[in-house]
Amino acid sequence: MSSLIPDHRDHFQLGVCHYPEHWPRDRWERYAEQMKRLGIAYARIAEFAWSRMEPRPGEYDWGWLDEAVEVLHAAGLKVILCTPTATPPAWLVRAHPEMLPIDHEGRRRNHGGRKHYDHASPVYREHSRRITEALARRYGAHPAVVGWQTDNEFGCAETTRSWGGASAVRFRSWLDARYAGDIAALNEAWGNVFWSQEYNDFGQIDPPNLVCEFPNPSHVLDFYRFASDMVVEFQEEQVEILRRFSPDRWVTHNYMRLFDEFDHYATSTCLDFATWDNYPTGGVEYAAFSPEEKTRWARTGHPDLVSINHDIYRGMKGEKRGAWVMEQQNGQINWAPNNPLPATGAVALWTVQAWAHGCDVVSYFRDRAATIAQELMHSGLLRHDETLDIGGQEVAGLELSGRPCADVQTPVVLLHDYESLWVQNAQPHAQAATYWEQLLLFYGVLRAMGVDVDIRHPEQDLSGYRVIIAPAIQLMSERRAAAIRAAATNAIFVAGPRFAYRTETGRVHEDGQPGPLKDLLGCKLRNFDGMRPGLTVRAGTHEVGIWSECYEPLGGETLVRYEDGPMQGQAAVVRHRNAVTIGAWSAPLIREVLATLLTEAGIRVMDLPDGIRIARRGEAVTWMNYNQHPAPLPDGTIMPPVSFEVRVGG
Amino acid sequence: MSSLIPDHRDHFQLGVCHYPEHWPRDRWERYAEQMKRLGIAYARIAEFAWSRMEPRPGEYDWGWLDEAVEVLHAAGLKVILCTPTATPPAWLVRAHPEMLPIDHEGRRRNHGGRKHYDHASPVYREHSRRITEALARRYGAHPAVVGWQTDNEFGCAETTRSWGGASAVRFRSWLDARYAGDIAALNEAWGNVFWSQEYNDFGQIDPPNLVCEFPNPSHVLDFYRFASDMVVEFQEEQVEILRRFSPDRWVTHNYMRLFDEFDHYATSTCLDFATWDNYPTGGVEYAAFSPEEKTRWARTGHPDLVSINHDIYRGMKGEKRGAWVMEQQNGQINWAPNNPLPATGAVALWTVQAWAHGCDVVSYFRDRAATIAQELMHSGLLRHDETLDIGGQEVAGLELSGRPCADVQTPVVLLHDYESLWVQNAQPHAQAATYWEQLLLFYGVLRAMGVDVDIRHPEQDLSGYRVIIAPAIQLMSERRAAAIRAAATNAIFVAGPRFAYRTETGRVHEDGQPGPLKDLLGCKLRNFDGMRPGLTVRAGTHEVGIWSECYEPLGGETLVRYEDGPMQGQAAVVRHRNAVTIGAWSAPLIREVLATLLTEAGIRVMDLPDGIRIARRGEAVTWMNYNQHPAPLPDGTIMPPVSFEVRVGG
Amino acid sequence: MSSLIPDHRDHFQLGVCHYPEHWPRDRWERYAEQMKRLGIAYARIAEFAWSRMEPRPGEYDWGWLDEAVEVLHAAGLKVILCTPTATPPAWLVRAHPEMLPIDHEGRRRNHGGRKHYDHASPVYREHSRRITEALARRYGAHPAVVGWQTDNEFGCAETTRSWGGASAVRFRSWLDARYAGDIAALNEAWGNVFWSQEYNDFGQIDPPNLVCEFPNPSHVLDFYRFASDMVVEFQEEQVEILRRFSPDRWVTHNYMRLFDEFDHYATSTCLDFATWDNYPTGGVEYAAFSPEEKTRWARTGHPDLVSINHDIYRGMKGEKRGAWVMEQQNGQINWAPNNPLPATGAVALWTVQAWAHGCDVVSYFRDRAATIAQELMHSGLLRHDETLDIGGQEVAGLELSGRPCADVQTPVVLLHDYESLWVQNAQPHAQAATYWEQLLLFYGVLRAMGVDVDIRHPEQDLSGYRVIIAPAIQLMSERRAAAIRAAATNAIFVAGPRFAYRTETGRVHEDGQPGPLKDLLGCKLRNFDGMRPGLTVRAGTHEVGIWSECYEPLGGETLVRYEDGPMQGQAAVVRHRNAVTIGAWSAPLIREVLATLLTEAGIRVMDLPDGIRIARRGEAVTWMNYNQHPAPLPDGTIMPPVSFEVRVGG
Repeated sequence: MSSLIPDHRDHFQLGVCHYPEHWPRDRWERYAEQMKRLGIAYARIAEFAWSRMEPRPGEYDWGWLDEAVEVLHAAGLKVILCTPTATPPAWLVRAHPEMLPIDHEGRRRNHGGRKHYDHASPVYREHSRRITEALARRYGAHPAVVGWQTDNEFGCAETTRSWGGASAVRFRSWLDARYAGDIAALNEAWGNVFWSQEYNDFGQIDPPNLVCEFPNPSHVLDFYRFASDMVVEFQEEQVEILRRFSPDRWVTHNYMRLFDEFDHYATSTCLDFATWDNYPTGGVEYAAFSPEEKTRWARTGHPDLVSINHDIYRGMKGEKRGAWVMEQQNGQINWAPNNPLPATGAVALWTVQAWAHGCDVVSYFRDRAATIAQELMHSGLLRHDETLDIGGQEVAGLELSGRPCADVQTPVVLLHDYESLWVQNAQPHAQAATYWEQLLLFYGVLRAMGVDVDIRHPEQDLSGYRVIIAPAIQLMSERRAAAIRAAATNAIFVAGPRFAYRTETGRVHEDGQPGPLKDLLGCKLRNFDGMRPGLTVRAGTHEVGIWSECYEPLGGETLVRYEDGPMQGQAAVVRHRNAVTIGAWSAPLIREVLATLLTEAGIRVMDLPDGIRIARRGEAVTWMNYNQHPAPLPDGTIMPPVSFEVRVGG
Repeated sequence: MSSLIPDHRDHFQLGVCHYPEHWPRDRWERYAEQMKRLGIAYARIAEFAWSRMEPRPGEYDWGWLDEAVEVLHAAGLKVILCTPTATPPAWLVRAHPEMLPIDHEGRRRNHGGRKHYDHASPVYREHSRRITEALARRYGAHPAVVGWQTDNEFGCAETTRSWGGASAVRFRSWLDARYAGDIAALNEAWGNVFWSQEYNDFGQIDPPNLVCEFPNPSHVLDFYRFASDMVVEFQEEQVEILRRFSPDRWVTHNYMRLFDEFDHYATSTCLDFATWDNYPTGGVEYAAFSPEEKTRWARTGHPDLVSINHDIYRGMKGEKRGAWVMEQQNGQINWAPNNPLPATGAVALWTVQAWAHGCDVVSYFRDRAATIAQELMHSGLLRHDETLDIGGQEVAGLELSGRPCADVQTPVVLLHDYESLWVQNAQPHAQAATYWEQLLLFYGVLRAMGVDVDIRHPEQDLSGYRVIIAPAIQLMSERRAAAIRAAATNAIFVAGPRFAYRTETGRVHEDGQPGPLKDLLGCKLRNFDGMRPGLTVRAGTHEVGIWSECYEPLGGETLVRYEDGPMQGQAAVVRHRNAVTIGAWSAPLIREVLATLLTEAGIRVMDLPDGIRIARRGEAVTWMNYNQHPAPLPDGTIMPPVSFEVRVGG
Repeated sequence: MSSLIPDHRDHFQLGVCHYPEHWPRDRWERYAEQMKRLGIAYARIAEFAWSRMEPRPGEYDWGWLDEAVEVLHAAGLKVILCTPTATPPAWLVRAHPEMLPIDHEGRRRNHGGRKHYDHASPVYREHSRRITEALARRYGAHPAVVGWQTDNEFGCAETTRSWGGASAVRFRSWLDARYAGDIAALNEAWGNVFWSQEYNDFGQIDPPNLVCEFPNPSHVLDFYRFASDMVVEFQEEQVEILRRFSPDRWVTHNYMRLFDEFDHYATSTCLDFATWDNYPTGGVEYAAFSPEEKTRWARTGHPDLVSINHDIYRGMKGEKRGAWVMEQQNGQINWAPNNPLPATGAVALWTVQAWAHGCDVVSYFRDRAATIAQELMHSGLLRHDETLDIGGQEVAGLELSGRPCADVQTPVVLLHDYESLWVQNAQPHAQAATYWEQLLLFYGVLRAMGVDVDIRHPEQDLSGYRVIIAPAIQLMSERRAAAIRAAATNAIFVAGPRFAYRTETGRVHEDGQPGPLKDLLGCKLRNFDGMRPGLTVRAGTHEVGIWSECYEPLGGETLVRYEDGPMQGQAAVVRHRNAVTIGAWSAPLIREVLATLLTEAGIRVMDLPDGIRIARRGEAVTWMNYNQHPAPLPDGTIMPPVSFEVRVGG
């Protein structure tokens, strides 16, 4: 695949999402010129345009798209084509209503939005392959076309999981295959003896919704795995077709921030690189923040909530550069509960932050603001009246020269795993103790210390890191345990709460947490404590909330103990050779422990001012002020509000 | 129609809602006498009594109703008869379950409450016409019967919109007619090219529920229009029958406070006048108030939340007198989350406030408190034990002489439009930025300045007003634009946020807000900003929250600018000749601007104390103290808690 | 039945919930020994094990259970067997999907949890009888088997009421029987003339869900009665079979704290004694507490929320001893929103509190923590790794000698009635004015005064009590009125708010509250007032919130009046001979009134420190400190945090 890696690796470039079908024909050249003048190099098109490509069953209309591609080509823009499969047209839906997904409440959802399909639907998949092939055949070798985006934002509109219909049928055969036709193996894997849940054959199994009281977490885990696998299949089918009919082009998908209904690593295997859609103000609205924090970050987004996605999606292919933002917010959005205007400077800051975290292209959503339908309150680089909007003005002012696409400088890796996420969030035990919050807790501590990190799947290659941190890896198969044991040989290894609590099927290890990794950690779990907001304990000199757990040392040394509460005197932090286990949700405690370990590993630890972040790429260190007020740096410089500064060497 | 306008125009009168079928026969004369002694002139009866009029299919039983009418007649009470269609009986529902409405979640709702029908159901409509005709034939000419009420509280129980069944079928033919059979016209009107939503024929279209992610706002708008039209048809069918069989009687409907699922103007066209049901304590419970505000107004209601309904419903027929309160809360209610006893004096205050705002009749709900079923916690003028309850005692103490039914004195008009409401609330962009709150923001500022207002549809006759204010008119057709341009010629015109943001079909004007009215306003929209609670900016010297927008002057003069935030330096208020555009949600800013304009128009501006309101009718100025403590008036008078005082001339 | 009353009456004993089927065979002896060493006498088994007893339709496998019983028997443990009916196996559910319950939203719920059946389903009931008989035949006479538990936690998973399917069908015949085939009688009982709800025949009636607006409370009441009766039938069928095939064994059921979907008195008639499942930290999470209170009691539970259940369930059979805790929390639970570790000492405190309130056996849930499925985060006496967990260590340290099973010393009785609960919660009138809160208001006042109470159904034998309190008895039939009148002859009688507001069918008495008991109370209701949080009035010197009502004295003497608000000057408390009516939700007011009455009755009134409670059993007075800090007793003793002390004689 690497021979296909595109020209965007040379220098940082910009792109834009463009919908020619939304505009009169007489605007197309004008908009292309306008984008070109803004310094834009890429135009992503044809997303969602199925009803225009195939207005009636089997009747294709390529005229408009031929013309649109030519216009962009003539203007010197590189074209990214999208498969239009996220929006099957009405004629297809009405002919095959069985392709519609069933929601968690058992209701069949309807046409009129997007992503209205069950990924396991054979008939939908047949049509998805058909339109993909038709599109790829026609444009696959067009000189303007440099790459492809599949579908749009898998996981959007909560349709990854269809709780009935085609998915229910396919789930049974998927289980049959997974358990090699042995229903007893499934009953054992899920612990179905509990509450008489045992099945006699695979045909008795349904999705785990509408059950009385709680569903079995192992049942949930396998259903989520199944649903994720359907996305993988769907993705792979499209990619195979695109590669067949469009050689020498790259293929990607535009993921969405912190979406988690499918295993993004698995859906990325067949891609050349991953891209994501960066909407910082929306992220704040949906964050687990207090109202005051939401107000503070309303116009800028939160720096870590943005950058964790850069670090996650760059890591999909295990790289240190080469990611994209496929859709970059360039003004107000429309889909969050509240949609404020970004602060002055925010669009430029987000763009540079993307580059600093390893992105090679940032592509804005969208050129002219839509005058129609669901997104008519969303900004574009151009306003409804075709004047350049605030964000467009910031893009126009961006200085892009001097931004080489070097590697990010990341000596530390955080492990991230969607299956662990699914089981943790299925049984959080304390309402606030969710997977993302636990990952962000460690991530935020590192970023506030000025430490650059990669984020990787625990079974990716982890060699070369000086510190490996597993903030929330709850599932621990033998295979994964072996991989981690190996990776931890030459690095400092840090485990967070609930590390290795479960086996691969979501049961608890028969000898308790951390199962096969007792030898590595030199301790085992004694008790855990899921706390409501307001309930706290102390560990060392620090306050701990939400979650605490204590350990029995088995060769390890207790570094920090609980000072009160039901676990008073018990170990909160245990070290065993190079492995450290931290059982307490406490940013200052985690900071204290990590600072020592990082220093030991020769990694510089800073104490960045509130709202200030840095990121290192190649020789450059990018300083970012997310505050809406001037803020002093450690060297006395005062950074203006919502600004960045790139320094070479520190 | 004006020859039918009833005797209630002469002097203010009282009424009562009476349910003889709820009581043993031996009580009827006694209750009639009791009501008469309280000074009551009207009795509204037969509402909901279908199962007594027609106990079995086609078997009518009029005996009890004949007698009830006679008893009231004998007591000298004027009778208002209701069509009983709000409560189809069990035998009808079970014979035709397809008449039941489908809720937003796709569930068929059931018998056992009220309003359990899809207004588009042909079979239900057939029976509704049949019972209406039977009732009208029998009592249409009875000398006691002076008028009719159709059905009950359209919009109650969220049944205006049926999201499937008969409505889904009829919606398609309604669309076919609206777009003259041209599906391309519909696709263009809705912007269906967005997300491949295009339809090939009308038969593919469903109601916009259960879609994946958001529905298209134009789809929503047309579905709401359709559902509203079904109520209009239903209303018109009944009114036609009543006029046919009951000549020389008036026909009205009892609307409910701030209900908005249908276009009240359209359902009022065929009526003689509009009435509404006034439950002030319930209004507070459902208001967008802080808990502290809800507690403050819990026992009185909020004066503006009450009076805005008087002003809306009086305006249904474009009049300055002649409205009614058909149901007036006379003690605790039963249907809000919390149902406190009203403050001492509140029942009297509400009654006089109704008169002061142009009502000619106030009719209490109900005589004796129900001892059965859903409303057995609701108060009556009589308690369960038949003693006179607190509210009844206040009614007994009312002095009604000296309350002539003159015109209200309203030099200012606020424009109000249900279609604009639907699209604003479908896409509020900030959670708190709803239509009603935006209308109430302007309304409350005016009332606190002691200014009397009418509320009118933008296409009603607006001549004669010195100031026309459009707080939240978001939809702007060419026809409406022409009407407003004409009306604004001889008046000061004020536009609020999002004025003319959209075309008639819910798209954005291709040249942006305010589309065809740039010439009038002398400015166009640059940016808008939907703010979460706690996020604010400053405009001039005032704090702005929830919503702000800024303008590019096109001949207009910038009166106020934003002082901070992303729109710093941009215009918040623009004046162009007699037209002023205000883009900021800020009561003090709006007050400052309106005070200047009102003074310019020769309208007196006051600064009423907190909780004090006035209303002018004919020569009388009614002062009202909604506070539960004594409050000083500008002239030094101290008003007792929860009280009123009528002054002639000031 | 009394000859069957078991040996547990002699001295306080411990038990444990044991699931041999969850563990490898080689663990069984070891666990039995371990439990025995902890001082445990009883093992409850076979709950939920249907799929192991009957893996395929009609194929029984008793081998494992034979062995499990033998192992326990050999270890000297007494065995309690459970009917496994709470978890019908997959093969049964898939063969008869019509047995699944329909939820309030009309959705058929699914296999995969527990309690997934409609109690009215004939086919499910047939299988429930069949498995019960098979089990009872095999083990009914086994010497190890001392007693039986039916099913598990009726009311769990909200499946008591199935809103369609088999229940809808049976509801109609149940109504037909209740109203002796006379539909007019039903219409009258429910007040169906209201809103034309009248039925022509029983076949037209559905459960009261999905109605438009509110359902009729009498319809709701009868549906709840019906659903409760189905549980009664289900219980009685099992008990009849067990008694037939297992003579000389006792039969019980394990109820759940404050569950209220069925009439626990009716389901207890056929039992020997009642048991309940005590999870104090879960109770706090679901309590109507402020966040601060929830945090305060998070690790201990609240003493009154625990003990009210002891007092309720002991009272099921009208006894003063002999109850059990069948499942006692012994560490963190897993099913509440937040599941903290209990405070050190809490497991011991809960155990002793149970004894002090009349329990003869406390049985822990469970031995080893589950490593599988829904409850793998729940604690056991043993951890996952088979070490003794914190709670197990506290159990090991318990000193049980000197705990004789005498009578509790309870001179006061509180009346409790599930039907009153249903109607109050169906129409609370103020959100916070729920039945449980009203009962707990009186209960907490008494417990804070150190007064021991029984809780009884109003139609149980009430002789022997010096004070009878009816905090929330809203339904008042003639029969009940007669019983109360008789019981009140020789006692002080206290009525709380809404006492006797309704007739037996849920209507209001035609002469108002308290209907037939005006003579007893010497007053009748004038007005009630449902207040939102923050809204208060004053009665005497006390603040009143949530609810207040006032009375017209009819021979009674006004003890306390409202000092402000709409009922200013009206009676809040009325005394008539030995009967006192209290209409105000105010703990200090209720305390003031009750203190006087208790003193008058010769009952000692104390002023216990915050968080301290006492309970008297036989000669022993158990002092309990629920605080997590040391607390001084009235005699100057300082109790350690979370501790108890048993004193003989005071």
